[in-house]
Amino acid sequence: MSIVIRGGTVVTADHSFRADVYCENGLIAAIGENLQVPAGAEVIDASGQYIMPGGIDPHTHMQLPFMGTVATEDFYTGTAAGLAGGTTSIIDFVIPAPGQRLMEAYEQWRDWSAKSASDYSFHVAITWWDDSVAADMETLVKDHGVNSFKHFMAYKNAIMADDEILVKSFRRSVELGAMPTVHAENGELVFQLQQEMLAKGLTGPEAHPLSRPPIVEGEAANRAIQIAQVMNVPIYIVHVSCKESLDAITRARNDGQRVYGEVLAGHLAIDDSVYRNESFEFAAAHVMSPPFRSKQHQQALWQGLQGGNLQTTATDHCCFCAEQKAAGKDDFTKIPNGTAGIEDRLAILWDEGVNKGRLTMNEFVAVTSTNAAKIFNLYPRKGSVSVGADADLVVWDPAGTRTISAKTHHQNIDFNIFEGRTVTGIPSHTLSQGKLVWCNGELRAEKGAGRYLHRPAFTPVFDAMAKKRELDAPVPVKRD
Amino acid sequence: MSIVIRGGTVVTADHSFRADVYCENGLIAAIGENLQVPAGAEVIDASGQYIMPGGIDPHTHMQLPFMGTVATEDFYTGTAAGLAGGTTSIIDFVIPAPGQRLMEAYEQWRDWSAKSASDYSFHVAITWWDDSVAADMETLVKDHGVNSFKHFMAYKNAIMADDEILVKSFRRSVELGAMPTVHAENGELVFQLQQEMLAKGLTGPEAHPLSRPPIVEGEAANRAIQIAQVMNVPIYIVHVSCKESLDAITRARNDGQRVYGEVLAGHLAIDDSVYRNESFEFAAAHVMSPPFRSKQHQQALWQGLQGGNLQTTATDHCCFCAEQKAAGKDDFTKIPNGTAGIEDRLAILWDEGVNKGRLTMNEFVAVTSTNAAKIFNLYPRKGSVSVGADADLVVWDPAGTRTISAKTHHQNIDFNIFEGRTVTGIPSHTLSQGKLVWCNGELRAEKGAGRYLHRPAFTPVFDAMAKKRELDAPVPVKRD
Amino acid sequence: MSIVIRGGTVVTADHSFRADVYCENGLIAAIGENLQVPAGAEVIDASGQYIMPGGIDPHTHMQLPFMGTVATEDFYTGTAAGLAGGTTSIIDFVIPAPGQRLMEAYEQWRDWSAKSASDYSFHVAITWWDDSVAADMETLVKDHGVNSFKHFMAYKNAIMADDEILVKSFRRSVELGAMPTVHAENGELVFQLQQEMLAKGLTGPEAHPLSRPPIVEGEAANRAIQIAQVMNVPIYIVHVSCKESLDAITRARNDGQRVYGEVLAGHLAIDDSVYRNESFEFAAAHVMSPPFRSKQHQQALWQGLQGGNLQTTATDHCCFCAEQKAAGKDDFTKIPNGTAGIEDRLAILWDEGVNKGRLTMNEFVAVTSTNAAKIFNLYPRKGSVSVGADADLVVWDPAGTRTISAKTHHQNIDFNIFEGRTVTGIPSHTLSQGKLVWCNGELRAEKGAGRYLHRPAFTPVFDAMAKKRELDAPVPVKRD
Amino acid sequence: MSIVIRGGTVVTADHSFRADVYCENGLIAAIGENLQVPAGAEVIDASGQYIMPGGIDPHTHMQLPFMGTVATEDFYTGTAAGLAGGTTSIIDFVIPAPGQRLMEAYEQWRDWSAKSASDYSFHVAITWWDDSVAADMETLVKDHGVNSFKHFMAYKNAIMADDEILVKSFRRSVELGAMPTVHAENGELVFQLQQEMLAKGLTGPEAHPLSRPPIVEGEAANRAIQIAQVMNVPIYIVHVSCKESLDAITRARNDGQRVYGEVLAGHLAIDDSVYRNESFEFAAAHVMSPPFRSKQHQQALWQGLQGGNLQTTATDHCCFCAEQKAAGKDDFTKIPNGTAGIEDRLAILWDEGVNKGRLTMNEFVAVTSTNAAKIFNLYPRKGSVSVGADADLVVWDPAGTRTISAKTHHQNIDFNIFEGRTVTGIPSHTLSQGKLVWCNGELRAEKGAGRYLHRPAFTPVFDAMAKKRELDAPVPVKRD
Repeated sequence: MSIVIRGGTVVTADHSFRADVYCENGLIAAIGENLQVPAGAEVIDASGQYIMPGGIDPHTHMQLPFMGTVATEDFYTGTAAGLAGGTTSIIDFVIPAPGQRLMEAYEQWRDWSAKSASDYSFHVAITWWDDSVAADMETLVKDHGVNSFKHFMAYKNAIMADDEILVKSFRRSVELGAMPTVHAENGELVFQLQQEMLAKGLTGPEAHPLSRPPIVEGEAANRAIQIAQVMNVPIYIVHVSCKESLDAITRARNDGQRVYGEVLAGHLAIDDSVYRNESFEFAAAHVMSPPFRSKQHQQALWQGLQGGNLQTTATDHCCFCAEQKAAGKDDFTKIPNGTAGIEDRLAILWDEGVNKGRLTMNEFVAVTSTNAAKIFNLYPRKGSVSVGADADLVVWDPAGTRTISAKTHHQNIDFNIFEGRTVTGIPSHTLSQGKLVWCNGELRAEKGAGRYLHRPAFTPVFDAMAKKRELDAPVPVKRD
Repeated sequence: MSIVIRGGTVVTADHSFRADVYCENGLIAAIGENLQVPAGAEVIDASGQYIMPGGIDPHTHMQLPFMGTVATEDFYTGTAAGLAGGTTSIIDFVIPAPGQRLMEAYEQWRDWSAKSASDYSFHVAITWWDDSVAADMETLVKDHGVNSFKHFMAYKNAIMADDEILVKSFRRSVELGAMPTVHAENGELVFQLQQEMLAKGLTGPEAHPLSRPPIVEGEAANRAIQIAQVMNVPIYIVHVSCKESLDAITRARNDGQRVYGEVLAGHLAIDDSVYRNESFEFAAAHVMSPPFRSKQHQQALWQGLQGGNLQTTATDHCCFCAEQKAAGKDDFTKIPNGTAGIEDRLAILWDEGVNKGRLTMNEFVAVTSTNAAKIFNLYPRKGSVSVGADADLVVWDPAGTRTISAKTHHQNIDFNIFEGRTVTGIPSHTLSQGKLVWCNGELRAEKGAGRYLHRPAFTPVFDAMAKKRELDAPVPVKRD
Repeated sequence: MSIVIRGGTVVTADHSFRADVYCENGLIAAIGENLQVPAGAEVIDASGQYIMPGGIDPHTHMQLPFMGTVATEDFYTGTAAGLAGGTTSIIDFVIPAPGQRLMEAYEQWRDWSAKSASDYSFHVAITWWDDSVAADMETLVKDHGVNSFKHFMAYKNAIMADDEILVKSFRRSVELGAMPTVHAENGELVFQLQQEMLAKGLTGPEAHPLSRPPIVEGEAANRAIQIAQVMNVPIYIVHVSCKESLDAITRARNDGQRVYGEVLAGHLAIDDSVYRNESFEFAAAHVMSPPFRSKQHQQALWQGLQGGNLQTTATDHCCFCAEQKAAGKDDFTKIPNGTAGIEDRLAILWDEGVNKGRLTMNEFVAVTSTNAAKIFNLYPRKGSVSVGADADLVVWDPAGTRTISAKTHHQNIDFNIFEGRTVTGIPSHTLSQGKLVWCNGELRAEKGAGRYLHRPAFTPVFDAMAKKRELDAPVPVKRD
Repeated sequence: MSIVIRGGTVVTADHSFRADVYCENGLIAAIGENLQVPAGAEVIDASGQYIMPGGIDPHTHMQLPFMGTVATEDFYTGTAAGLAGGTTSIIDFVIPAPGQRLMEAYEQWRDWSAKSASDYSFHVAITWWDDSVAADMETLVKDHGVNSFKHFMAYKNAIMADDEILVKSFRRSVELGAMPTVHAENGELVFQLQQEMLAKGLTGPEAHPLSRPPIVEGEAANRAIQIAQVMNVPIYIVHVSCKESLDAITRARNDGQRVYGEVLAGHLAIDDSVYRNESFEFAAAHVMSPPFRSKQHQQALWQGLQGGNLQTTATDHCCFCAEQKAAGKDDFTKIPNGTAGIEDRLAILWDEGVNKGRLTMNEFVAVTSTNAAKIFNLYPRKGSVSVGADADLVVWDPAGTRTISAKTHHQNIDFNIFEGRTVTGIPSHTLSQGKLVWCNGELRAEKGAGRYLHRPAFTPVFDAMAKKRELDAPVPVKRD
């Protein structure tokens, strides 16, 4: 099967240029003006449109078992919705229960993910520690292409990683050349504040953000970054939602530390007034952690993207329906945490970012695709428009519009946090592995077509840090 | 007994002025030019000298049982050495063993301290948590004049307070109007780095600073400050030794948070090259935590004092002799931590501060005495030169010189970290409770003359914060 | 004449204590509990009230000739209004026209100010430069008790001081021991932005803040501070209105530089929405420079006071009535700049500061009185409640309330920017020079009773800086 | 002519991969493993070596008339030396005398540069202002491919641009889509400090850095950045030499402002101790502005590169020989400012950067070539290894070593600031326009082979800013 995209402008993280793109056997085979292509190639007319690398969502939770229920979106429906929105790869999370062997959990998730419609990969969470964890980390890195490990600093009495686990896991990550990532919220403070809110009679969703104020996130981000600095390992902070954690990242980056930050489309566009909505259903539908923040924080996050202190955008896509959210009707701490977004991320980033002059088109590509590919070592197979790369492409119609709604979206959830927004700039076509999977509103996702992506360890920054570590190694003083 | 100090210039934290000072019955009875005083009053000639409030050292550890030994300096010898150097009050620490009732430890320390030559008070450490701790905190505040509690974030597997203890103790402190204080070092990181150093064959004192790098202190300071902010309580960081923890304080203060920082005379004047000295004895004598830092950090600390981000100076006076230090001959983690300094603090601050134009004389008084008195609610009884205040005074001879040496000092330790420095500016006379206890080189300290100082809770800043907390209290959303 | 204030609590910048205060011959003669005083002394009952040093307003412009008109408030009406509000001293400005001898302008202003009801002093502006200016600066410092000079970085083509003037004047200030102060706005940018706004058809008061955005102030503040650092002189930034200039101050202070910042009551309490009011009269009445800012800036300014990066509060009291403001009906650049406030500053600071838990009472005293007295070397004569100080006192009734209004205020202006606010906390009595000038709503100000205040040069910080400068003096390299 | 480079690893700013590179007709014609190429193509063996885009030096001054003399290095010798060091393009400066028409100066420089051996382009300096300047800026942008203008904030009474010029030129730059760049030093302060030093008898080169302390640079950088922010234009700061100006850039970038910073190889590797060398000749040879700084600043600059706050590296290559430098024997202000470096920049960056673990190889490419190409709109023609790009390549031998010396370098100057350093990592081959111009130590530069590079205006960031400006445009208030 071969496809040629004609008449458009290729937009990459680096630059923009007029060119046709020819895809064959799942790969980009040629790029150039007025390409000569074999007869029979399907032609997509991209006049007036942009051809960009498909989006990479480095933070999703398909069919996650969490807080006593299971996310409604499975790997098929979720990745299909992604394709409808121009996202062609995800990195989801394997989350072992404390005490569970990492390999066992990994196999479980691989089993669940087999039905994915787009390519996918996994971060693996470190939720406990013993020698088997260290051993399984090595197996995952060397045999299964896992090059990143996740640590939840929140969720006390569940999957929280304390400082001891962070230190041990980060040290192991250095040895393996794998990137530590953290969900940064001080779990002890969250736990205590939750109890305090309930004790004060604040049981509704409006107490959710009060139990997780920005400081709680900023503290944890700073702590994780400092531990990474001491351990001499790069670090990636997931879902940075507020100025406080962005500041921790920024301070470290300003000092030359290798720190990366991810921001969710939701945190860029939705503010915390939602939690005081008089409808429980509406408010609860927005319960996720970290919570939405005030507009001031949104502004800071956009500045973080502009200044390069935040590199990636994601969704933390994790779907729970009204019925599930109702579990916390009388106790906000029991509302399953999570919101959808995989289908809308690119459109929100374009509409709020490019259309408002906050980002250039090239920056848009960088933060929706290329940077994630580089950080997690999928580049240039993913995240680029280059000969030999996977033909995961989105043809973007800057003039197209769509009014986002749960009634029309492809996500398997009864709510959309962007409900009612009309965005300008939508994908007209999405190609995954060289196949047309989204075509002017028609979704052609194929269950099980997605492939598991191996991600090699030791990105260049690990080599640089190893060199520096070696040069700086302390020498004992000779004494009699 | 009455004394009049004539011909000098009174220097306070606020201003300087020519006046005589008349002391009677332990109190300052009159201040003025050409005072008429009762016949028989002893006259001290302070011509060309400054009359200042006696120093307050808010951080000492007399006869502390620590790391398997006991500090050599007891409450008598230590406070006497303080008087020789112009320091007339100390705040020492009661440190209960984990599991020990606070009241029991408190009584123990009160017993030890009865022989003090100068007035004294106690911070009480929170090294563990249960309901009895909360109850004893109340007893200490309400019945015993304790208004500050100490938390060691270092010393894992010993007296370390983890986040849960911090949160609970800080919350209790809000209720009681007592100031939380912290020794800020990430205990988990220190522990892991110590193991790492030993594993690498770095067993000497040069490994001590490597196991406690500035980041380890900065992280903990930031964490404690953020927890205090969430809990809505002021906080005091003891022995700030480096730019990183100063920065954490500074950031918080710049945001209006009520944070205070203390710096040791040693950290202002001595750098970390001492740990690479070829003599184990010399290097080990400097082992304290946090360790001495590079000159860049010293400069930052002076700037902290100048800009008001650090308010107090102390010594962490804790004496171990060469024989005791030798316990760590083959393992730096076994070297008892501590250095002396109570006798030299004022002279070092004057010589390095006032003589070098870093501090005005008024700032000198503020950071050696007045600010500590205010923060710990001893003002104006201590820390001021005002009618009705305790006659704890130092007559300072700005032209006097002294070469500091363990051979001549009054401290009960065989080493002086300032050995060989000649300082210009020394106390010619010290008055404690209106009595002349140091007179041109003659020490007249009296064992047991010191009184225990009750310090009331709820300084004004607690009231302000309570008002704000009340105004900001969250309100539940009404839903059907 | 003698007065005793009984039953109140004395509140100073340092602490609070129950005491009576006895005033005689214009001075505070005694402070103590249950004072014995001569018969015949007038008794003021201060039960339940606070006795504080009278306010010092370090920034007023009485009867200023400006922008083609003259401020309506003269030295008598203005200082009288101050007394009604608890302010007992002002520091006004002598502003020579470019080319005018400083001494001539000084004499002019001294003449105008002779009718003041309260004590007063003058900063003198440096609006041009030649040898006579340098000479007059010396005369003013040595013979007339002027220890501060003002520099307008705004008002291009009028009184603006460019970098050359700043450098030369700051250098002269070092020699004379006088404090440079600056109005920090980049005059070139303001000028260009004004032209731009007019060109775009933005002629109304809403263009005023757009022509002076926060950056314009932040840039100038930073520049002045850096020049002061290079010249090795302390510096005082008047009317800091925004985060940007506060940040410049904060950065410098964090680095130990001797920088001081003043904030106006108006900037703490009023936001920039006033400029978009549909009434020209209302909007124009708020036109002052720098303009009012958004609420975010207000929050930053309060934090500046809390953290000690801002030390003083003032009003920039400069009254123009509706008729005068109308000169800019069709061109906002012609609206005379200025607002009133001397009568309301203390009440606004108390109500917004102390009542809302932002400031302690002691901090209130510091920022309304004591700090200004120290910085401008009037302490302890002014700004303190101490024996021997001028009996300039305010008895503050924390339960009293007042609804601020132009209809009832004593200021000579037809508008009040705080119109309609009901404040809790008002002066029940004000004493100036030991006389009761405000008594439960009755104003007894006396024209011409005010005295000119000499302020000596060389505050302690100048001495410290001189020492440092000497130690750091560069040495030539010896070469053949 | 065609060349194939075989067996090496291509290293770009994005990633590294094994590939052959085939060059034909001056362009890169193919990239791939085991490329089939036409017979007759010259083969370069790059086994064990890296193939990278040739360096771009965005800051040189060939044969500059300056301070009464002319730089010894002309466009031929200078670009040839660049080729020897792996640099294949330069951007030099046209510097009109105040009053001189820009077009006239431009033509003059174009004439001088015709003999260049490598491709070249020009920034044009704005040293004065009138309508002709605005007109010529348009001509330069639209007809001559100039997309950047330079402003000297130093050199008072010569080419200094004051705030008025900056504002007007920046505004014009917005209209034209051209990047303003600044030499950031406060010219007034430099001038005054120079006089002060001379007056104190400090006449030698050691006074040079004292007359231009870091604050002087930091102030100017901050000012230019703030003006750019107000004018809504991106800005590029040349030769950032110290923490202070880096901080100004960093603060702005953290706030999302479009600011770029350049650092010189010399500032990264040489410290200010050189100015106190007892040899006048040695010290004077290092006189350039801004001067070399202390090691602390060097560390900050490296961190700036790592964190992305600095994007480009350059040399400010400007050669004056001992004889010329001697003009300032008795007055350091008369020493012609400038040092060489075009031949050594890449080697210094590799040796100090990559070999020490400060930079990855990809970052090395970014900061020596790609980022400059993007910022100044030469990408991907320059700064990339991609099909269709100019075949300006360097084959880098990471194991090769060279001891830098004036005796062996190709630069036309009798001194080398890196004299005696042995670097590991050198160019084995350089290709310019597809021709081999440096081959294992043999220089084959051809006089006049270099082409003038047109650089189009309106890089994407200008479009984004224009969109934002439009959305933020202020609206007048409607009033009666």
